[in-house]
Amino acid sequence: MAELKVVVAGAGGRMGAANIRAVAALGGLDLHGAVARLHGAVDRPGTPAIGQDAGLYAGIGALGVTITDDIDAALVGADAIIDFTAPSASVALAGKAAERGLIHVIGTTGCSEADDAAIAQAAQHGARIVKSGNFSLGVNVLASLVRKAASMLADYDIEILEMHHNRKVDAPSGTALLLGEAAARGRDIALKDHSVRVRDGHTGPRETGTIGFATLRGGTVVGDHSVIMAGPAERIELNHRAEDRSMFAGGAARAALWAASQPPGLYSMADVLGLD
Amino acid sequence: MAELKVVVAGAGGRMGAANIRAVAALGGLDLHGAVARLHGAVDRPGTPAIGQDAGLYAGIGALGVTITDDIDAALVGADAIIDFTAPSASVALAGKAAERGLIHVIGTTGCSEADDAAIAQAAQHGARIVKSGNFSLGVNVLASLVRKAASMLADYDIEILEMHHNRKVDAPSGTALLLGEAAARGRDIALKDHSVRVRDGHTGPRETGTIGFATLRGGTVVGDHSVIMAGPAERIELNHRAEDRSMFAGGAARAALWAASQPPGLYSMADVLGLD
Amino acid sequence: MAELKVVVAGAGGRMGAANIRAVAALGGLDLHGAVARLHGAVDRPGTPAIGQDAGLYAGIGALGVTITDDIDAALVGADAIIDFTAPSASVALAGKAAERGLIHVIGTTGCSEADDAAIAQAAQHGARIVKSGNFSLGVNVLASLVRKAASMLADYDIEILEMHHNRKVDAPSGTALLLGEAAARGRDIALKDHSVRVRDGHTGPRETGTIGFATLRGGTVVGDHSVIMAGPAERIELNHRAEDRSMFAGGAARAALWAASQPPGLYSMADVLGLD
Amino acid sequence: MAELKVVVAGAGGRMGAANIRAVAALGGLDLHGAVARLHGAVDRPGTPAIGQDAGLYAGIGALGVTITDDIDAALVGADAIIDFTAPSASVALAGKAAERGLIHVIGTTGCSEADDAAIAQAAQHGARIVKSGNFSLGVNVLASLVRKAASMLADYDIEILEMHHNRKVDAPSGTALLLGEAAARGRDIALKDHSVRVRDGHTGPRETGTIGFATLRGGTVVGDHSVIMAGPAERIELNHRAEDRSMFAGGAARAALWAASQPPGLYSMADVLGLD
Repeated sequence: MAELKVVVAGAGGRMGAANIRAVAALGGLDLHGAVARLHGAVDRPGTPAIGQDAGLYAGIGALGVTITDDIDAALVGADAIIDFTAPSASVALAGKAAERGLIHVIGTTGCSEADDAAIAQAAQHGARIVKSGNFSLGVNVLASLVRKAASMLADYDIEILEMHHNRKVDAPSGTALLLGEAAARGRDIALKDHSVRVRDGHTGPRETGTIGFATLRGGTVVGDHSVIMAGPAERIELNHRAEDRSMFAGGAARAALWAASQPPGLYSMADVLGLD
Repeated sequence: MAELKVVVAGAGGRMGAANIRAVAALGGLDLHGAVARLHGAVDRPGTPAIGQDAGLYAGIGALGVTITDDIDAALVGADAIIDFTAPSASVALAGKAAERGLIHVIGTTGCSEADDAAIAQAAQHGARIVKSGNFSLGVNVLASLVRKAASMLADYDIEILEMHHNRKVDAPSGTALLLGEAAARGRDIALKDHSVRVRDGHTGPRETGTIGFATLRGGTVVGDHSVIMAGPAERIELNHRAEDRSMFAGGAARAALWAASQPPGLYSMADVLGLD
Repeated sequence: MAELKVVVAGAGGRMGAANIRAVAALGGLDLHGAVARLHGAVDRPGTPAIGQDAGLYAGIGALGVTITDDIDAALVGADAIIDFTAPSASVALAGKAAERGLIHVIGTTGCSEADDAAIAQAAQHGARIVKSGNFSLGVNVLASLVRKAASMLADYDIEILEMHHNRKVDAPSGTALLLGEAAARGRDIALKDHSVRVRDGHTGPRETGTIGFATLRGGTVVGDHSVIMAGPAERIELNHRAEDRSMFAGGAARAALWAASQPPGLYSMADVLGLD
Repeated sequence: MAELKVVVAGAGGRMGAANIRAVAALGGLDLHGAVARLHGAVDRPGTPAIGQDAGLYAGIGALGVTITDDIDAALVGADAIIDFTAPSASVALAGKAAERGLIHVIGTTGCSEADDAAIAQAAQHGARIVKSGNFSLGVNVLASLVRKAASMLADYDIEILEMHHNRKVDAPSGTALLLGEAAARGRDIALKDHSVRVRDGHTGPRETGTIGFATLRGGTVVGDHSVIMAGPAERIELNHRAEDRSMFAGGAARAALWAASQPPGLYSMADVLGLD
């Protein structure tokens, strides 16, 4: 049974701490023929967490891994990176994953088309990348339902709503976009050509065939998403509510273990879960 | 092009009036190779609507069809019955449909197992019956999604909630039960062996594998339904909201037209819509 | 007992038809010492409804009032105007209401500050104006609750969400703004200085003390509104769902009757209902 | 500045652990002229937590307080008990609180009328009791809004819905009943004479003036509550969503500190928060 040595990037943030706990929690669990072990933890220079024990920092007792700002040192001997950070950091890490043939699980949101292209490039040059707007089972099942419903209710107006805590810095959320992509696939259209991201003032009537997005921010909400399909005198709503970050982190750790038996390439969480 | 002569049962109630309007609205529309025409309208003796013109009663101008309490007279020359009434009336009408080889569209809710058996019997003896807890496109699509989700989220707890107006006399609604059946099919279990219909006082912990029902009543709500699947730290909700009764009536009229080209038997709205 | 002679503006639209029905429905009902009677019905030149009987057009049988495009002729002998049209039309009608000392009930949304100033001006020069983003009892009660909650939960983030049908041309809805004003009053702040109307791309963290708006459009939704107040580990949501337009029209007709016993001035629906 | 020595009852359960964390978290915070300190932690004989350090058990580092099954020993020198356990245990603890003149914060749900009478009796004989179905700020604000709305919408049908995790053993929740009591007070009626707790089968039309309850159970839901008021063609919904137990525990610890400056008697969380 193989041991998968995992480095958590962005270890000093809330998702980083959840990822550290998730890797530790999977420690003894054989999934897809491998077990995970925390090998390193990194964050940007100047982050207060630098120099602390990753386990103590994440509230689960010492793990003997110190959070460092030296990414190259942390990657020595590593098999996988779990990375919920920022677009530029994720692009750089994807490059390193390609060079070293690593697994790279990316939960970063807000990537531009150029960022996504650079990540796809890394996946063609040796990295095994699992990138998703959301690593929970529920969201990925919901995306599968959204795709089906968008196809069956071909004339209904589609709207996507999300709410997150007041510290989130980008909109719409990666999960909202993931659900929008699922809806677009169900309609055989390109999301970027049909999405409406802003409505304010005199908008005119809703344009047929578009997919609208709306964003709420407040409090400590972990993440709520709704996909609404509205037709004549009825509508359906497909909602997901996340209660805490543990399910995202658990899914990311599982994705890393799954990727250990895959060839290099770019995968989604639907691939990991065997959906669609 | 055939003309389908339709008798509306329960013509003096709100759904009856909606059914009259729906048949009239489909008047010129060729669906499945036939057009519908209102041929008769019946209700129980003593109902205030008896003796009135069905169209005037339904608010759409005279149609030349008088609402009567003589069901046998109304059925002379008829092809189809649309019936959202009460279980005993629907069982009796199914018998007449079998004798005369008629189409019988049944939207009645609250049927017992014995009622359902009698209706199935009629379908084996010459009636073409479409029976559904709900005739809208949205609800039937939702049922299809519920079945899929119940299978994909095999360990999640399933709960079904409905709200209707304060005059509804049975609970849970026919639509809630239809959605429960869809969930049970997704799990390969029998709904009647796993449903929890009442919770009050000391209930103990939720029993694994059950499907719970809850009912709200108030105001003039046409019909809201939610299917909730709750797992560790997340849940998905699949909701339907009906804005008015027109979509139920429209679906029932379409079902009658569809059945015109089917052999005798018992069908669901999913059959009519080609879902699953 | 006085009879209040009402002219419905925008008679050829959906809200106009609802207003015609509401005035007719109040015909025999003595409210605030007066009964309403439809006196005139107007719309823009070229509207298909011009020349038709207002009652027949609204689906309730002939009322002997022809829909016209000559507003001045329609106003001869009138006491009140009910007007859910467009900002420029409402400003012009307010001027005529001031000249003639009429009651002017305004449900128009999307007014600019300049439009609102012109309407306030008319109210100072002889018009009795009731202007509201929403004429239903439920929304006005909700606004009162929002004001109270915004004050009690002084540190919570406030977000306002609305959904309307796909033909609505302005955003956010007048009702969403009415609820935002109620929240702002509860916080003793000016809504226009604290509202966030667009979120897209890199937004940065939510700014403390702001009130966010989000808009959904689709299907035939009459109007749903939510005010969310989110704090540490909890949130409250105050929602309103409208099932059809009848309640708006009924409230507007009641507002006209109430205004009959008031001095000239600018009133809200909260004044009519005696709330706050 | 006084130090309030707090004993947590039911220390081995999830709410007990949250209460231990909340008391520790308030350690240095002067509220109402006192600071809280964990003095003891008790649970039933045989509970696995017996003998462990309360702080370690609750995941926050050792506090030097061992969880015991000897309640009398734990109460020696104590000022207050925080108790989210079971009705019989809470009644017994209230008796001890009366004997010793202690503060007793009770979050236990599912109490019978006899239990409540025994607790009220203890409050007349020396105990300072704060009992509530819910200790969060949001729920208590919501109850205040529900009371107001129930009075303003005097003819609307009231329904109360709750969802909790699949281990909860009683229904409806204490919070649902608290909200029901608030609605009943707004109507000047007694909840027990007007509540409808079960709907199944042929129920007949909704009886005017009743307050209905419905219960959902599933997953790990911390607690969602909705109060719906439904009238002609509209409804309002007043919802609360709890994200984790920390806010309940924090409110209970605050209630203990507030009670330190009150005379013996029976108080609610609304008293603590100064609401109504």
